[in-house]
Amino acid sequence: MRISFETMQATFSGILLKEGFTEAKARQCAAIFAENSRDGVYTHGLNRFPGFIEMIRLKLVNGDAEPTLESHNGLIEQWNGNLAPGMLNAQFCMNRAINLAKENGIGCVALRNTNHWMRGGTYGWQAVNEGCIGICFTNTIANMPPWGGTDARLGNNPLVIAVPRKEGDVVLDMAMSQYSVGKLMQYQSNNEELPLPGGYDAEGNLSTSAADIINSKRLLPVGFWKGSGLSLMLDLLVTILSQGNPTQNISNNEQEYGISQVFISIRPANNEISNQLADQIIAYTKSSGLANPDQPINYPGENTLMTRNRNLKEGIPVNENIWNKVLAM
Amino acid sequence: MRISFETMQATFSGILLKEGFTEAKARQCAAIFAENSRDGVYTHGLNRFPGFIEMIRLKLVNGDAEPTLESHNGLIEQWNGNLAPGMLNAQFCMNRAINLAKENGIGCVALRNTNHWMRGGTYGWQAVNEGCIGICFTNTIANMPPWGGTDARLGNNPLVIAVPRKEGDVVLDMAMSQYSVGKLMQYQSNNEELPLPGGYDAEGNLSTSAADIINSKRLLPVGFWKGSGLSLMLDLLVTILSQGNPTQNISNNEQEYGISQVFISIRPANNEISNQLADQIIAYTKSSGLANPDQPINYPGENTLMTRNRNLKEGIPVNENIWNKVLAM
Repeated sequence: MRISFETMQATFSGILLKEGFTEAKARQCAAIFAENSRDGVYTHGLNRFPGFIEMIRLKLVNGDAEPTLESHNGLIEQWNGNLAPGMLNAQFCMNRAINLAKENGIGCVALRNTNHWMRGGTYGWQAVNEGCIGICFTNTIANMPPWGGTDARLGNNPLVIAVPRKEGDVVLDMAMSQYSVGKLMQYQSNNEELPLPGGYDAEGNLSTSAADIINSKRLLPVGFWKGSGLSLMLDLLVTILSQGNPTQNISNNEQEYGISQVFISIRPANNEISNQLADQIIAYTKSSGLANPDQPINYPGENTLMTRNRNLKEGIPVNENIWNKVLAM
Repeated sequence: MRISFETMQATFSGILLKEGFTEAKARQCAAIFAENSRDGVYTHGLNRFPGFIEMIRLKLVNGDAEPTLESHNGLIEQWNGNLAPGMLNAQFCMNRAINLAKENGIGCVALRNTNHWMRGGTYGWQAVNEGCIGICFTNTIANMPPWGGTDARLGNNPLVIAVPRKEGDVVLDMAMSQYSVGKLMQYQSNNEELPLPGGYDAEGNLSTSAADIINSKRLLPVGFWKGSGLSLMLDLLVTILSQGNPTQNISNNEQEYGISQVFISIRPANNEISNQLADQIIAYTKSSGLANPDQPINYPGENTLMTRNRNLKEGIPVNENIWNKVLAM
């Protein structure tokens, strides 16, 4: 079953209005959820929408709140998200970073006390749409053991790096676990085995069962000790720069809220030259021989654009159960 | 065999003087090589010193050159390394970034036309010694196939993130390959198998033979497709920000020179609070149960400090063949 982008957005927007959102905020949140599904990130689009409504009803996400500027550290701005919807806070802060980058070459905004931003890539696309480089990262509830450990003490802290390019923006959106939580949930709901071990089961054995890994909260860090180290550094950076909650504080609660994020934007010195260099790098990368002749080498973001174009033309594929659940809200 | 830090530095310095370095530059380069061995990164200390002298004699590294400021992009500075010793250029640019951070909260310096910086961690330690956060990354000659490819088209582009902390700075220094080139060379010279597959042999099979992997130039990216994507993004960032050589141009030459790097520094808003938050995050990470009761959980940089203290006390262990080769220079 496929649903048009417009229908999906209007449906989300109507429900958010019933939850007391202003028209502007309902439209903005609905657009982000619909765009995430449009771009193929169903786990953080339609599939996550009921969970978002639940967080509002639990009063862990506050639709009325607005981010407030807490302080400056030189050119770095520190904002308090006041538990407003994470997507709106993130969009606001990346916009601030972009404006600072347009003024000063580089902008850096730290955000505390915010909520899940859904698809991190959203804010990378936001930067490249303004012709700017975007870098952002977040902490999360603990869901990975540190390397050498057995208990979840690190979040899988997604990192986004986005570089503008006329022929197709390059947007990396990666969690520090070999599979993101969204991807694990997708494998679980499709009842499919992971192609590679993605974490440990309750007994501490490497596992390809998404369900076992989600239950054990022992996701495998990308590259073993390396992803463990990088995840720790990202928690240090978002916490210190925002003076917000580290993964520990977030993990003391049953639900994930009150998290910390950083948004950096950089204005390329010369758009023409930057574009040529990006084209050269992509062309060189693609010039490698293929391990499997049927599988081309894709740059980060390339599949997103293909999925986006297809879903805009043919409609966005939906899980009927979830779609019907949303229609009944 | 162990050699004192002072003897090692004086030996390096004497050789560099004979190669025509000024006294100040000889001392500075010698200190960096000796410090790398002191900190346990032997592959980029003593073991790499003969290769560095070879690059000088090939005139690919120019001991007389100095970096020059090419332009500003707002607060971002673009420097030309003029093929000066990579360590001196990198130390100079991280110093610029730190000074900019002290003035403005954040500093960003892009460097083109530079040379191998040896141990990336050097410039992370440099930032934390000034009480600042340091982030830097570099491109390299192609030594990894992109995900889905068979030919080296990506460098393993090391990334450094360093956060100051009184009880022990946290310094991550990671290549985008599962094992750095230095680590592979260490396993090769010790005739040891890698604990985990680190790349592919000439036939395209996953391999634990460091020699086969070095020869095939098919290092395995950290976390498969994820490290491949992150490496590509780092090449895009260093190339676009410095308007320098991407991995392709570097790989057209037999030797690696004329590479591109970025140095970012951030001044924590409040040292006291930052330190408390860092302590909390490290303590929480270490509070996990252990997978192996004999192997504690270490944060990035913790082993470096232990090795440094031991090597300062007992002398730096050296490969006698290499040490004698250097003594004869």
